Amino acid sequence: MPHPEFHPRRSVEEVEEGTVLAPKFGPDGLLPCITTDAATGNVLMLGWMNDAALRLTLQTGEAHYFSRARLTLWHKGATSGLVQQVIEARIDDDQDAIWLRVAVAGSGASCHVGYRSCFYRAVPTGADAGGPLRFREDAKSFDPTLVYADAPNPTQL
Amino acid sequence: MPHPEFHPRRSVEEVEEGTVLAPKFGPDGLLPCITTDAATGNVLMLGWMNDAALRLTLQTGEAHYFSRARLTLWHKGATSGLVQQVIEARIDDDQDAIWLRVAVAGSGASCHVGYRSCFYRAVPTGADAGGPLRFREDAKSFDPTLVYADAPNPTQL
Repeated sequence: MPHPEFHPRRSVEEVEEGTVLAPKFGPDGLLPCITTDAATGNVLMLGWMNDAALRLTLQTGEAHYFSRARLTLWHKGATSGLVQQVIEARIDDDQDAIWLRVAVAGSGASCHVGYRSCFYRAVPTGADAGGPLRFREDAKSFDPTLVYADAPNPTQL
Repeated sequence: MPHPEFHPRRSVEEVEEGTVLAPKFGPDGLLPCITTDAATGNVLMLGWMNDAALRLTLQTGEAHYFSRARLTLWHKGATSGLVQQVIEARIDDDQDAIWLRVAVAGSGASCHVGYRSCFYRAVPTGADAGGPLRFREDAKSFDPTLVYADAPNPTQL
């Protein structure tokens, strides 16, 4: 498989207007990744990638992340079977964020709580600000207790 | 205007399955915000919010961010007129990321380079990995040299 080269960041013009991939990872070595459902446009999750996760995602066409909870490279779907096939990858103007449009295998869910999207609750705004969160998915797509068994929950307080 | 209360993070169950807003800001005091065009579903930008930016966004129904380049609270559109009206705000499972679905005023652009979306370039994957970035917007929506005059470019190498 071709090996994507990460180029040096030589000038603002080249980073913003060029055709060369020159990603900027944060002080923690990570870069945020927005993952949307290519069919519906819904945001599924916000993940994080280190150098290896970004390379593997581009090479294999399947989403890889760096798990901040488990501090390890993470092939999404390795446990659940819910692999994310990359339909298109995009990078932003200053090349410090990635957007993946994906097709999700199986039930189509991407959230460890069991919903399709991690963003399953709306936050009231304007005149309704301060009100309770509102669920936007009626039911879970899978039972996380069956899929993940006794694996630790990645949510940290 | 109602003041949205940020609640303490008491349990994983309440954070994930409850109806109480309990956002988790990172060590730098910031939380990533995915902003999409409510009409097209396209991702416009990935921004960052501190406590004040999130409160103001929820209260006013207009997107506010924290500028990491200028280290200041930032009412999106204050300079360019391209205000982002929040159609819906959502929070993710562990409440450390926000998704805004917005309607953009004026030309509808959200990127300081002049494009509608900051994610105007595709990164080749799979058999094409390593190839040049491909532009996905044919033309800029506005001329940044006119809109921003001599304001410093926020992109940092």
